[in-house]
Amino acid sequence: MAISPSIDTAVKPSKPTQSNENTLRIGVIGYGYWGPNIVRNFHGQDRSRVVAVCDKSAKSLDRVRHTFPDVRTTNDSKEILTSPDIDAIAVVTPVWTHFDLAKTALENGKHVFVEKPFTVNAAQAEELIELAERKNLKIMVDHTFLFTGAVKRMKQMIDDGTLGQLYYYDSTRVNLGLFQHDVNVLWDLAPHDLSIMDYLIKEKPTAVVATGERHLNSVADIAFMTLYYPNNMIGHINVNWLSPVKVRTTLIGGEKKMLVWNDLEADEKLKLYDKGVQMTGDGVYDLLVSYRAGDMWAPRVEQVEALKMEAAYFVDCVMNNKTPFNDGVAGLHVVRMLEAADRSLQEKGKIIQL
Amino acid sequence: MAISPSIDTAVKPSKPTQSNENTLRIGVIGYGYWGPNIVRNFHGQDRSRVVAVCDKSAKSLDRVRHTFPDVRTTNDSKEILTSPDIDAIAVVTPVWTHFDLAKTALENGKHVFVEKPFTVNAAQAEELIELAERKNLKIMVDHTFLFTGAVKRMKQMIDDGTLGQLYYYDSTRVNLGLFQHDVNVLWDLAPHDLSIMDYLIKEKPTAVVATGERHLNSVADIAFMTLYYPNNMIGHINVNWLSPVKVRTTLIGGEKKMLVWNDLEADEKLKLYDKGVQMTGDGVYDLLVSYRAGDMWAPRVEQVEALKMEAAYFVDCVMNNKTPFNDGVAGLHVVRMLEAADRSLQEKGKIIQL
Amino acid sequence: MAISPSIDTAVKPSKPTQSNENTLRIGVIGYGYWGPNIVRNFHGQDRSRVVAVCDKSAKSLDRVRHTFPDVRTTNDSKEILTSPDIDAIAVVTPVWTHFDLAKTALENGKHVFVEKPFTVNAAQAEELIELAERKNLKIMVDHTFLFTGAVKRMKQMIDDGTLGQLYYYDSTRVNLGLFQHDVNVLWDLAPHDLSIMDYLIKEKPTAVVATGERHLNSVADIAFMTLYYPNNMIGHINVNWLSPVKVRTTLIGGEKKMLVWNDLEADEKLKLYDKGVQMTGDGVYDLLVSYRAGDMWAPRVEQVEALKMEAAYFVDCVMNNKTPFNDGVAGLHVVRMLEAADRSLQEKGKIIQL
Amino acid sequence: MAISPSIDTAVKPSKPTQSNENTLRIGVIGYGYWGPNIVRNFHGQDRSRVVAVCDKSAKSLDRVRHTFPDVRTTNDSKEILTSPDIDAIAVVTPVWTHFDLAKTALENGKHVFVEKPFTVNAAQAEELIELAERKNLKIMVDHTFLFTGAVKRMKQMIDDGTLGQLYYYDSTRVNLGLFQHDVNVLWDLAPHDLSIMDYLIKEKPTAVVATGERHLNSVADIAFMTLYYPNNMIGHINVNWLSPVKVRTTLIGGEKKMLVWNDLEADEKLKLYDKGVQMTGDGVYDLLVSYRAGDMWAPRVEQVEALKMEAAYFVDCVMNNKTPFNDGVAGLHVVRMLEAADRSLQEKGKIIQL
Repeated sequence: MAISPSIDTAVKPSKPTQSNENTLRIGVIGYGYWGPNIVRNFHGQDRSRVVAVCDKSAKSLDRVRHTFPDVRTTNDSKEILTSPDIDAIAVVTPVWTHFDLAKTALENGKHVFVEKPFTVNAAQAEELIELAERKNLKIMVDHTFLFTGAVKRMKQMIDDGTLGQLYYYDSTRVNLGLFQHDVNVLWDLAPHDLSIMDYLIKEKPTAVVATGERHLNSVADIAFMTLYYPNNMIGHINVNWLSPVKVRTTLIGGEKKMLVWNDLEADEKLKLYDKGVQMTGDGVYDLLVSYRAGDMWAPRVEQVEALKMEAAYFVDCVMNNKTPFNDGVAGLHVVRMLEAADRSLQEKGKIIQL
Repeated sequence: MAISPSIDTAVKPSKPTQSNENTLRIGVIGYGYWGPNIVRNFHGQDRSRVVAVCDKSAKSLDRVRHTFPDVRTTNDSKEILTSPDIDAIAVVTPVWTHFDLAKTALENGKHVFVEKPFTVNAAQAEELIELAERKNLKIMVDHTFLFTGAVKRMKQMIDDGTLGQLYYYDSTRVNLGLFQHDVNVLWDLAPHDLSIMDYLIKEKPTAVVATGERHLNSVADIAFMTLYYPNNMIGHINVNWLSPVKVRTTLIGGEKKMLVWNDLEADEKLKLYDKGVQMTGDGVYDLLVSYRAGDMWAPRVEQVEALKMEAAYFVDCVMNNKTPFNDGVAGLHVVRMLEAADRSLQEKGKIIQL
Repeated sequence: MAISPSIDTAVKPSKPTQSNENTLRIGVIGYGYWGPNIVRNFHGQDRSRVVAVCDKSAKSLDRVRHTFPDVRTTNDSKEILTSPDIDAIAVVTPVWTHFDLAKTALENGKHVFVEKPFTVNAAQAEELIELAERKNLKIMVDHTFLFTGAVKRMKQMIDDGTLGQLYYYDSTRVNLGLFQHDVNVLWDLAPHDLSIMDYLIKEKPTAVVATGERHLNSVADIAFMTLYYPNNMIGHINVNWLSPVKVRTTLIGGEKKMLVWNDLEADEKLKLYDKGVQMTGDGVYDLLVSYRAGDMWAPRVEQVEALKMEAAYFVDCVMNNKTPFNDGVAGLHVVRMLEAADRSLQEKGKIIQL
Repeated sequence: MAISPSIDTAVKPSKPTQSNENTLRIGVIGYGYWGPNIVRNFHGQDRSRVVAVCDKSAKSLDRVRHTFPDVRTTNDSKEILTSPDIDAIAVVTPVWTHFDLAKTALENGKHVFVEKPFTVNAAQAEELIELAERKNLKIMVDHTFLFTGAVKRMKQMIDDGTLGQLYYYDSTRVNLGLFQHDVNVLWDLAPHDLSIMDYLIKEKPTAVVATGERHLNSVADIAFMTLYYPNNMIGHINVNWLSPVKVRTTLIGGEKKMLVWNDLEADEKLKLYDKGVQMTGDGVYDLLVSYRAGDMWAPRVEQVEALKMEAAYFVDCVMNNKTPFNDGVAGLHVVRMLEAADRSLQEKGKIIQL
């Protein structure tokens, strides 16, 4: 600890933060790339506060103290996992550590907010879900995109039938970096798409095909994933750590309308096209294809920070004993698809039934 | 059509167009979507002229006579295939007719310029190649994109080592329509990419995985194709007839530089990025990833009409007995990949060795 | 004339093209950059045909004969202006020649279709208008943009009150070239904007301010024009021959909605924004500004070739004795604004009342 | 605000912050839109710290205390202007208050960092410059853009002759809002462009023409400004508070190359075009125009936060007694151009000599 004890004492009470029916006391484990956003959002709202942050890096803890002088810091996760003045734990660490941390947190009676992907395999996810249920605790998996204005608007448009029956969902999510050593590009980038698809699409995928390749490392840095759904709906995800340009574009084709979601657009993230194709005639050569090309409409999309909404939702779910829609089960769905994709990738596109 | 037979006679000599060492006499079969461009380009250059055009539609032939009053028209392909005043046949018809037309043309001693894809299967392509060789005739498959300024410039940059070892080639080629009844979206759109990849990439693919789905018809309207190459190079093609927006973008990742080809850009079709990733260290946890993000450079690209260049090249190959690089063998390569992709698509992503 | 008389005779009747109540016989003077489009469109429709084309360049006439073997060619404009088998003259020549050619045409009883800008000054325009009226002949000035789907759609949206009271019209029309020796960049590029503004905006401008500069030539190659309208509406035009990029973007601000017209977009040329500003309160410091940012909507825009529509409209106006909305008077409005802008430019921004 | 006075006392020393040769002690007046950035940057660097912040709004001061618990707050500017533990004052208030605040600061021996535009008229600016000189104090005007990677790179390319002699500088800076009650859109948005032009262009403008209009308020919300320079160089600025889209694009034309700066691009803000025009021949009709269209090059631009660089530069100038290039004189240049533009605007485009 670089800050002198005297100042530390001045701003941080030595006695535990008191339980308060109106405030959820949160401990955060992991203060790397995403951790600061987690702390800022849980600390910045009325009904929760961050009591303590843990990280192995002294430099990271310095940054915590600089920005949040009233938050306790430690490099020992146990301290946070067992602290009596903490109600919920946010696990913002590499995926291979999620299971142990979340399990200990639950065993110590704490609710869990955990980064995506939930766990490294489905078995771990199932065990955590079972444990949380038994102890009547909440698990929320940080599928942040589900709280963006764009995804909420798409959900609405799919649910109210604007698009009609879905034909395909095709996402391209590529950029230069970020390489991770322990997971491949699918585990790094595809959880965004898989959680969004799980949320938007009513049916569940029945099988997965994945292909990809590695170039610099022992893990795939470029990969393509196809998801087969009932009724000829098809999903496709293109992820790449070696792209010179950043792309975040999803095309969604429906029977009635089609949608383009470009998340890099500042203002017009969603574009709804009144375009379609109709086939008439009953034989191969009688077929008459007619295209419909009408107006395009870019609905205004709510601009609130997604993580802020999600943090408030977590607090609400815990305090009012609600089951979050992005709960452990939602996290498990994503992990199952990633596991299947990994197996398919390993076997060069072999179809894996879900 | 208003032009009377007498006028017709006035402008079209009844005696055969005379052979001329300096002019290649061409007969065109098919005057649908692409035919007019073929006729315009073979007719508009010094060393070739279109003698006759065949189409089954009277309306199409009317259009020929309106635009090219000096060109003979017929609805009987035999007339063209056997005509003594024709040196070469351009086959601009649906793919399932290519084999019969090209075969008859070759048997009648005529060179063949044929639309892509070359044939419906590899066996047909091989038979035509063998026949042409035996009769010392030329086959050129219309892989027009190989004659664009953009592809020529990319060829240069790959051949001279600018990009370094290739990591991936990832093409997205989607739009609304054009539905075809007899072939799926792979046979319609992927030949462009496959012929370009065959031209640009030194190594040949070793295996193919394809997935896709159909929604309105008996053929797939959306499909994804992965091509495995030696040395971890990977190819990917995304084709879609049901996209609300038109996309023609290819990302090429290399060891030294990366390239984006956006064919819909008017001026800056190619963008070369001085970006890359380097890994140092030898263990999993020693690995240091460093990204390089430098300038972007958009080389000027030749703006000549590709088909004009290709038509001149065909004439040159025939007249000077040169083997075109886009010959029957190049066409066969593309057909083999399409056949493999079709089998893989049928079996939901099963890998097909080439 | 390069084509031999015998062939010439074969395809071109020696007797004059017969008058026909249902076909307007057109003579075209000028076959440079725009002439081929004029000929193609007047020749390609049912109710008119191009009888003869005049150009001083033998090469241009060769091109006419190659593309339109049935059209008479000449390098003597008199021949066309006085020909008894011609009903209307299209004047597609540099602006300083318009007056003499149009005047002779009218004097010879021929209707006139003339390129923009109409004449080099208002006096000439007024004389031609008066002459046409006296002889009961039509003048149409080729303000092609008025026939585009985009301008027609904007006209609709302004007329039906969608935008509310107009605040400003701000056009940027820049690119590299085309330099002209006899007119400055305002006379070359601004007529498009001025004719569109004259068409879209109900009120007429009351004064003009223009600034600009010349760099390579004796005429301005970059210029900026402000038009003052009643009710605080303001117009602005930015034209530039020395821009490295091509821009064709117009912003239109209205009390209720705002519009962006990007003519270089393939599909979404018009974007209507449900955005606005409202002021409440009555003192300077009580003022409350509220912004409204809603949906964006890109209405489908008709894709027909504008010149084709305009050519048909010209024929219709002549045959049915209708006054075109883009008549000589409309042309005169544009010329008056250009004259005023020229004076202002000369005097470095001095305001010129209209 | 939840923090009790006692805690307030705990973190803020009641004795003055000690002078330190290595740390510049800064007082900030104004904590509205831009103030938080000023505080963050002066507080976040090694060689300066923010000692106190003044704002009239209690809510703003709450925000200061929440984010910077160790910074003193007050609603009385005198307290800061006269405080003995403050070396320099940052004036981040509306322009009409700059003169009084800066004057008092200088009179109290404090260096001044002041928002743009410097003052409401040239006389005020001159008085402050004279006062600072007399008291050997520094004035820096916050022309933040001069510290961006893009402007620094352009400066380099203009200074090293890459563009050749400049022909024009044409900036479009439009968006929806921000309305200000006390200044018009020129004073709000054009200072960015004017300070950049003053920095990039060696010659000084000789005259100004401005036009514009107001629609909702007593001040112009849309305006256009032309600046005449020696040697036919021309400048143009288009500013608009009522645009539905945000545009930040500047075209710079030079004899040798041309530049487009799009500040809204994430990565490729600058594009240098190897394009140009050459005229040969000596008479009007002998003139031969030739266009050169070559490669485009997007140099990598430094991505550091501009204000961070500027804050460090201010500290460096004060501590090492250097005259900043964005000093009071630079601020005066901008104010003079704004004054001239205002007069021209008032008189509807009358040219104002500088």
